[in-house]
Amino acid sequence: MKLYIGNKNYSSWSMRPWVLLRQFGLPFEEVKLRFDSFSADSQFKTRLTGIARAGKVPVLVDDDGFVVWDTLAIAEYLAEKFPALPLWPTDPKQRARARSYCAEMHSGFGALRSHCGMNIEASLPEVGAKVLAEQPGVRADLDRLVELWSEALAARAPGAGPFLFGTFGIVDAYFAPVVARLRSYALPVPPAVQAWADAVWAAPGVTAWVADALAEQDFIAFEEPYRTQR
Amino acid sequence: MKLYIGNKNYSSWSMRPWVLLRQFGLPFEEVKLRFDSFSADSQFKTRLTGIARAGKVPVLVDDDGFVVWDTLAIAEYLAEKFPALPLWPTDPKQRARARSYCAEMHSGFGALRSHCGMNIEASLPEVGAKVLAEQPGVRADLDRLVELWSEALAARAPGAGPFLFGTFGIVDAYFAPVVARLRSYALPVPPAVQAWADAVWAAPGVTAWVADALAEQDFIAFEEPYRTQR
Ligand SMILES: N[C@@H](CCC(=O)N[C@@H](CS)C(=O)NCC(=O)O)C(=O)O
Ligand SMILES: N[C@@H](CCC(=O)N[C@@H](CS)C(=O)NCC(=O)O)C(=O)O
Repeated sequence: MKLYIGNKNYSSWSMRPWVLLRQFGLPFEEVKLRFDSFSADSQFKTRLTGIARAGKVPVLVDDDGFVVWDTLAIAEYLAEKFPALPLWPTDPKQRARARSYCAEMHSGFGALRSHCGMNIEASLPEVGAKVLAEQPGVRADLDRLVELWSEALAARAPGAGPFLFGTFGIVDAYFAPVVARLRSYALPVPPAVQAWADAVWAAPGVTAWVADALAEQDFIAFEEPYRTQR
Repeated sequence: MKLYIGNKNYSSWSMRPWVLLRQFGLPFEEVKLRFDSFSADSQFKTRLTGIARAGKVPVLVDDDGFVVWDTLAIAEYLAEKFPALPLWPTDPKQRARARSYCAEMHSGFGALRSHCGMNIEASLPEVGAKVLAEQPGVRADLDRLVELWSEALAARAPGAGPFLFGTFGIVDAYFAPVVARLRSYALPVPPAVQAWADAVWAAPGVTAWVADALAEQDFIAFEEPYRTQR
């Protein structure tokens, strides 16, 4: 399998399936399309639209050339392709809840996304504090996230693992870019959520992505509303 | 099953699972939560957050009280609950493509959504023409939609039905609110796409929803950027 991704420091969508594949030890080749710009004549768009007309990363190309685009569809494709792996919770109701959380993330939390863009390498606690103070939408997004994470963690069976449904799965990968934002912008969360966030940050798939992001050393100005240089 | 929905004239998200349930003849009870407002103390939010903390419609409550929220998760839940029904295409690769289209819709097309809000009862061709002329984002969204619909229609097996993968499924329900917008705003599409849009508009699940929407006679000012009355 080939996974087309954007810059690891910035591309929150790309991070999800990459982390999932890596965490589950599934072999894949990464193809990075650098974010020069998102205009139609950029090298990013030119290369990408030759592969998937939707023109966004991530895109998965399977060994037989079959193309799946969009994060949630890639996650479902992998879950069907590797049914023995617990990518989704194996219990149907837990799986339905996990899908509700992922679908909610997939279309929501626009205020947090736009005001606190993923920027793994950056430490911007003063921006986080300012945004939380001034943007009610960001506060509402964070409140809802804390609520849903807390609910999932509290619903785990006794003795379950540290992730949202016990063991690491699609739903944890889905929120991994938000964990990166909690860190960069020093957004406050309660201790139980922090313990989960720390477990996500320490998961091998996530540490591997973060190490690559830090090594990237690529400053993309249009992804940097709060800085003019690293 | 109970399905919580918003106003049928305006609530594009609610339309999708309702149309799906109705089109497949699945028995369900509809509970309408009128859009008085989306503020925390509205009756809409007060009633809804007692059922699903995410605070958005649609929400499905199964017979045993199990709650699934968010359109895409509801669609997947129904597909798992009724495996004999072709809610998704039965071929794994066609299913993956259908999921890519739905996931793309789920998180995208923001310009079209915000400039051409669903308003089944309205006929606003002059707004459509103005928006298309002035908003490059809406043009780009429509171009991509036409491209993906055309691609899906062209990929059908010879003799297949009129829907995106032949027979009506989740993916057609997903785009049904966009078909409503094509009509209200008179957005131009090529003949092959128009034939599909007409088939969607004539599907029993869709005609039932549209009839109810027209009978609603409820003018919600905050959903009406382009009018002050019906
Ligand atoms: N819903 C899509 C969103 C993907 C997305 O927006 N990716 C960004 C990079 S993180 C992108 O490629 N943007 C290019 C553009 O918006 O033109 C998915 O889940 O794959
Ligand atoms: N991703 C959600 C979106 C649902 C949604 O935004 N629904 C609107 C009505 S069409 C809503 O309930 N809005 C209330 C709010 O935004 O507070 C889904 O697919 O169910």
